[in-house]
Amino acid sequence: MLTNTRLIRVQWGDCDPAGIVFYPRYFEWFDAGTILLFEKATGLTKIRMLEKYGGAGLALIEAGAKFAVPSQYGDDIEIETSVKEFGRSSFSMVHRVSRGGAPALEGHEKRVWTVRDPNDKNRLRSAPIPPEVLAGFNRP
Amino acid sequence: MLTNTRLIRVQWGDCDPAGIVFYPRYFEWFDAGTILLFEKATGLTKIRMLEKYGGAGLALIEAGAKFAVPSQYGDDIEIETSVKEFGRSSFSMVHRVSRGGAPALEGHEKRVWTVRDPNDKNRLRSAPIPPEVLAGFNRP
Amino acid sequence: MLTNTRLIRVQWGDCDPAGIVFYPRYFEWFDAGTILLFEKATGLTKIRMLEKYGGAGLALIEAGAKFAVPSQYGDDIEIETSVKEFGRSSFSMVHRVSRGGAPALEGHEKRVWTVRDPNDKNRLRSAPIPPEVLAGFNRP
Amino acid sequence: MLTNTRLIRVQWGDCDPAGIVFYPRYFEWFDAGTILLFEKATGLTKIRMLEKYGGAGLALIEAGAKFAVPSQYGDDIEIETSVKEFGRSSFSMVHRVSRGGAPALEGHEKRVWTVRDPNDKNRLRSAPIPPEVLAGFNRP
Repeated sequence: MLTNTRLIRVQWGDCDPAGIVFYPRYFEWFDAGTILLFEKATGLTKIRMLEKYGGAGLALIEAGAKFAVPSQYGDDIEIETSVKEFGRSSFSMVHRVSRGGAPALEGHEKRVWTVRDPNDKNRLRSAPIPPEVLAGFNRP
Repeated sequence: MLTNTRLIRVQWGDCDPAGIVFYPRYFEWFDAGTILLFEKATGLTKIRMLEKYGGAGLALIEAGAKFAVPSQYGDDIEIETSVKEFGRSSFSMVHRVSRGGAPALEGHEKRVWTVRDPNDKNRLRSAPIPPEVLAGFNRP
Repeated sequence: MLTNTRLIRVQWGDCDPAGIVFYPRYFEWFDAGTILLFEKATGLTKIRMLEKYGGAGLALIEAGAKFAVPSQYGDDIEIETSVKEFGRSSFSMVHRVSRGGAPALEGHEKRVWTVRDPNDKNRLRSAPIPPEVLAGFNRP
Repeated sequence: MLTNTRLIRVQWGDCDPAGIVFYPRYFEWFDAGTILLFEKATGLTKIRMLEKYGGAGLALIEAGAKFAVPSQYGDDIEIETSVKEFGRSSFSMVHRVSRGGAPALEGHEKRVWTVRDPNDKNRLRSAPIPPEVLAGFNRP
């Protein structure tokens, strides 16, 4: 299945006084990884994709990570993002972070495809992931 | 004239591997200070204020700071924000940061009140600051 | 048991193009909440506490959150941080975020008290949480 | 003279509720640009460079930017960093940001090479930029 790999050089400002990546940064990179994978699948930016398929967002239900090896300023890390499972409207993302080829940490996100409620535009509700979006993940 | 003072306890994650505040954080606090001052002047959040007075934003033209004393995790700093000068559509903000009562650094921003171009909604153009907004800065 | 409650006014720069809090910010606040609770328990900043008790850090093993209600610029949220469980060297933190008194999301962290390996100062290893630190959590 | 060019794809989380880059992000990129340029000049990470040449840091004295064109999520921007001028211990950095080949904004930083005061290790003072570091900027 489709994956997105992003190389990140850890910058000085990504790190905390202990000299290691301040952990919320990883979640910034996970969020970006999810969006970049959907862009790869659909050939559209998130905003265009949502417009085209009537979506309101990829609402986050859950996010988490298990941290094994810390990374430091100057390290090159690789974040490999893929979908672990598609439900009808929900889906689970996996973000595998490695450093020098060795696993460093792993993150996950559970999200839901949402649309605006036709009866109340300020309300969002979950909706089936559009088949055209799904198809993009199964392209060879 | 109206000022806004915000106390900030410097957090671990605000600091870099040298153990001092990573300087872009100050600009985050300046941006917040400007918005909080406009909220104080108008009694409205930025979004409501823009809706009420037909504004599109407080577009940033220039921002800068002179750094004298670094702050560290655990320090309590105070950011005093005020308007240095109002032009017709532009205005200059000053952000004085002190630590333990002594000046630590000073930031400034130049911004412009913008509205959507009536002929092209995707275009913004500068417009006079609404008198009701201005009035809020001169209240005793 | 000891808890730390922190009020946060959501700022413009905490939010993303969907107008809601960009979720890594919550983890920034969780990290700060954990540190603030240890400060409250010991009466020392994290750095002083680690110095005094020979610790090297509160190493993160796991972090996660379940998101129920999104928050927006201008919202006042409350983050209540407590320790769910102390192990010998590990401990679990809970961060309950509410908005207007109603639960909005809940985060957790699993961490380990670490010290420098006496045989190799660049290596960290887990160690029992010092009893003086533990005692601070049980004060009335 | 030596320049460093970095391509940045603007991510969702780099942007604010107005859908444009939250301006402190540019300063994060300027800080990284300065460090990356020194790495290029010396072939060493900032930490190694400071160790090798006895430096304590590249202390920031001043930073600022003039904003012309906002960038949005999905935009590819290019940041070209160079040294505008070297003093004895101070130096001025320029960061030119372009989007699609057209100038978008320009930032600057004034910094000083610092060392630890031999009489008081907690004090930093300015010191001449080491000639070996300077030489790295003049290599063809």
